[in-house]
Amino acid sequence: MRAEIITIGDELLIGQVVDTNSAWMAERLNESGIELYQITSVHDDREHILKALDDAFSRADIVLTTGGLGPTKDDITKHVMCEYFGTTLVEDSRVREHIHELYKERPDVLNRLTATQWLVPESAKILTNRVGSAPIMVFEQTGKLLVALPGVPHEMKIAMREQVMPFLEFRERSQSELQNGASAYSLEASGEIIHRTMMLYGIAESTLAIRIEEWENALPTTMHLAYLPKDGIIRLRLSSYGEATKEEIEQQIANLKPLIAGNLIATEDLPLETILGNQLKARHQTIATAESCTGGRLAAALNAQSGASAYYMGSVVAYDNTIKEQVLGVKHSTLEKYGAVSEQTVREMAEGVRALMNTDYAIATSGIAGPTGGTPEKPVGTVWIAWATPDGTTAECYHFGVAREREQITQRAVTAALVELIKITKH
Amino acid sequence: MRAEIITIGDELLIGQVVDTNSAWMAERLNESGIELYQITSVHDDREHILKALDDAFSRADIVLTTGGLGPTKDDITKHVMCEYFGTTLVEDSRVREHIHELYKERPDVLNRLTATQWLVPESAKILTNRVGSAPIMVFEQTGKLLVALPGVPHEMKIAMREQVMPFLEFRERSQSELQNGASAYSLEASGEIIHRTMMLYGIAESTLAIRIEEWENALPTTMHLAYLPKDGIIRLRLSSYGEATKEEIEQQIANLKPLIAGNLIATEDLPLETILGNQLKARHQTIATAESCTGGRLAAALNAQSGASAYYMGSVVAYDNTIKEQVLGVKHSTLEKYGAVSEQTVREMAEGVRALMNTDYAIATSGIAGPTGGTPEKPVGTVWIAWATPDGTTAECYHFGVAREREQITQRAVTAALVELIKITKH
Repeated sequence: MRAEIITIGDELLIGQVVDTNSAWMAERLNESGIELYQITSVHDDREHILKALDDAFSRADIVLTTGGLGPTKDDITKHVMCEYFGTTLVEDSRVREHIHELYKERPDVLNRLTATQWLVPESAKILTNRVGSAPIMVFEQTGKLLVALPGVPHEMKIAMREQVMPFLEFRERSQSELQNGASAYSLEASGEIIHRTMMLYGIAESTLAIRIEEWENALPTTMHLAYLPKDGIIRLRLSSYGEATKEEIEQQIANLKPLIAGNLIATEDLPLETILGNQLKARHQTIATAESCTGGRLAAALNAQSGASAYYMGSVVAYDNTIKEQVLGVKHSTLEKYGAVSEQTVREMAEGVRALMNTDYAIATSGIAGPTGGTPEKPVGTVWIAWATPDGTTAECYHFGVAREREQITQRAVTAALVELIKITKH
Repeated sequence: MRAEIITIGDELLIGQVVDTNSAWMAERLNESGIELYQITSVHDDREHILKALDDAFSRADIVLTTGGLGPTKDDITKHVMCEYFGTTLVEDSRVREHIHELYKERPDVLNRLTATQWLVPESAKILTNRVGSAPIMVFEQTGKLLVALPGVPHEMKIAMREQVMPFLEFRERSQSELQNGASAYSLEASGEIIHRTMMLYGIAESTLAIRIEEWENALPTTMHLAYLPKDGIIRLRLSSYGEATKEEIEQQIANLKPLIAGNLIATEDLPLETILGNQLKARHQTIATAESCTGGRLAAALNAQSGASAYYMGSVVAYDNTIKEQVLGVKHSTLEKYGAVSEQTVREMAEGVRALMNTDYAIATSGIAGPTGGTPEKPVGTVWIAWATPDGTTAECYHFGVAREREQITQRAVTAALVELIKITKH
C-alpha cells in the first residue's frame, strides 16, 4: 500500500508553524509497512485542497490529511471533503455526546460553534477523537481511502495510535488475505520495509563514505544506503523495501561494523540521552550537570525520557558568575584569572555539582553561544566541557564555529557532552 | 511572484527527520512579499524529483529545493537538475578554492568525494555556501527560476539570508521596474502581504470566535482571519494579501482590541520568553527558576535569546527530592507531609531559589509528566507552579490531562509559568 500526507493550513505556508505532524505520521506508517510517497502542504483554500487530493490519489491509494477541522470560519476541510466525495453534513449523536462529555466542566465551550463539530459527512465513517472535538473522518470510495485528522499534534497522535493505525493495519491484513491481484490495494511487494541505522560520531561524511566504499558498492541492488548528518552525528541508514530478508540485512551490518568500529556509538537510531540513560541504568550510576551556555538543555535531554529519575539527580544552571561561585563553589580567583569560558572554570563547575548532588558523574559546560560576546581569543562558538567521573575529571575545548546560530551551538555542545559520556560509560 | 518549496530526502518520508527548513524559508519569503503556494516533500528518486519540478513550475514561477546536495551516493539532486535543465557538470575553480579554504585544517576531508562538490552545472549561476561544501545553484530558463539549497539547516539559513533572499529581492525590484505585463514575473498584486498577530491566553477557540463574531463578519473580503491554537495560546492572525493599506489593518486591530483585552498577552507573534524578557529588561529586574517536572526547559526558554544575561541569573533543576532539600532548602517535613507535587513544596522551591540566587522573581514547577507515576489524587498531568515575587508568592495547580504526552505536559507547564509571570510583570 502506498500513502500520501496532505497538511492543510496557511500557517504552514507563511512559516508560522513547523509541520512536525508529517514526520511523526511517516514513522508510524513506515513501521506498519505502508510506504509514504509524498508529503504536500497546501493552503486553506477549496480549489487548492481539491487539486491536491486529485494529485495525491493519482499516485497513492491512501491519503491522510491534517488540519482545517476546527470550529472556526477559516477551517474548511470538512466542507471540501463533502464536496470531493459528493456527500452532505448530518448530525452524529455519538459525536455530540462525546463532545458534551469532553466539555462537561466548561459549559462556555458548548456553544453554537462547537455544535458544528457534531455535523459530519453522511458517507464517512467517524473515528473517535478521544481528546478533542474534531471528529476524525474516513472516506472510502472506488478504491480510494481518505482519513482526515485534526492538525493539533496531540489530538492527531492519539487518534493515529488508537484508531487510524489499527484500522489501516487490519485493512491491510484483510486485503492481503484476499490473495488476488484485482484489488487496488494489493501490496506491491509482500516483504517488510526494513531500516537499520548506525550512529557515528567524529568523522566527516565524505571520509566515512570513502572508508566504506567497497562495502557500499558490493551491496545488492535491493538495498539502499543513506547518510544523514546532523549536529555532529552521522546516521547511516541501510534500507530494504521488501526484497531482502532480515538475515541478509544483518549480514551486511556485520560486515560493515569492523570498518566503523572506532566511530560507532549505537547500532540503532536512538536519542543520545536514551543511549546514555540505558548505560547508566545498567550500571546503577547517577549523573548531574552544571550548565552555563547550554542553559538547561543538557538537563532537559537527560530527563526527557520517563524513568530518568533512576539516574538523573538534578542540575544547576549557573548563567551568572555569582551563581557559579555561590552555588557551585567555583573559586573567585579562577573566574578572575581564567574567565568563565575556560578549562579551569568548567572543571570546578563539574566537580562542584558532582559533590553538591553526590553523583557518580557530572558534566559542566561554559561557552560563547553568540551571536554577541565573542573575542579574538574566544570567538563565538568556543565551548569548554568537563566530565567529572569516579576516575577523575577530563575537559575539552570545542570550536563550533562563528557561522552557526546560537541554538545550533548549544545543541552541538549538548551532543558533544553526551557523546563523550557515552564513550566513558560504555565499557 | 509565487514560489514553491520542494524538500528532497527519503529521511523526510520515513519520519527520521522533521522538516524545519520549510517553515523557516516560508517566513523569509513571506517577509519579502513572495507568496509561498505549496510545499512538497519527495524521495531521493530521479523520476519523483523530475515530476515534482514539473508540477511545481506549472503553478509557480520560483522553486526552491533543499536536500540531496551532499558528496555521497544517495545525493542525486545535482544530477537530476542537470537533466531537467539540459546541462552538464563542469569544474568551478572558485568553489574548489572555497572548499580548500573551508577544510584547510582538515586535510582528510579534502578527498575525492569532496572533490565532486566543485563540479557544478554549466548553465547554473553558483552562489557561495559560506559554511559548507555544497554549492548553491540557481537555474533560470524560459521564465522559470530554480534555486537548489543544501538540506543542512544552518547552511541553508546562512545561504538564504546572505545570498538567496537578496538575489530574489533584487530580481523582484528589477522586474517591477520594467512595468510591463509581458514578463512572466510581473507581480499579481502591487501591495504588500501584511500579517498582524495577536496572542491570547485562557480562552477556548470557539468562545473567542463567538465573542469577536460581529467584528470578524464585518471584515472586508480582502482580509482574512485565522485561529492558531497551540500549547494553550491562541494566535489570532489577520492577513491581507496586498489589497489593504497598513492603516486599514491597524484600524481593524484597534476595533478588535477592546473585545479581547482580558485575554491578550501580546500584539505581535513573539516567543513568550521574548515578551517576558523584554518586560524584565525594561524594569531592570531579574529571574531564577527551580524546576522539577519541567527539568530545565523553563531555564532553556528564559536564556534562549541573546542578551538573556541581563535578567536571567540561573536555575536549579531539583529532579531528586534530596536536591529539593539540600540545594533549595525545601523542608524535609514538607516533602514528607505533602509530597513533591504540592502547593507547599513549589512555594518553598520558588522562595528557596529566589533567596539562593538573589533575584526579583522566581518560578518553581513540580508535577507528574508521565506516562507513569500518576495516582488517583494526582493523575498524570498534575502540575503545581509557584511564582515568588517582591510582593509575595502565589501558586496554582494545573491539570494538563492524562491524554497528553510527557513532552506536551512539560511544554504546557512552561507556557503557563511564563504567561502568568508576563501578566504579573506587565504593569
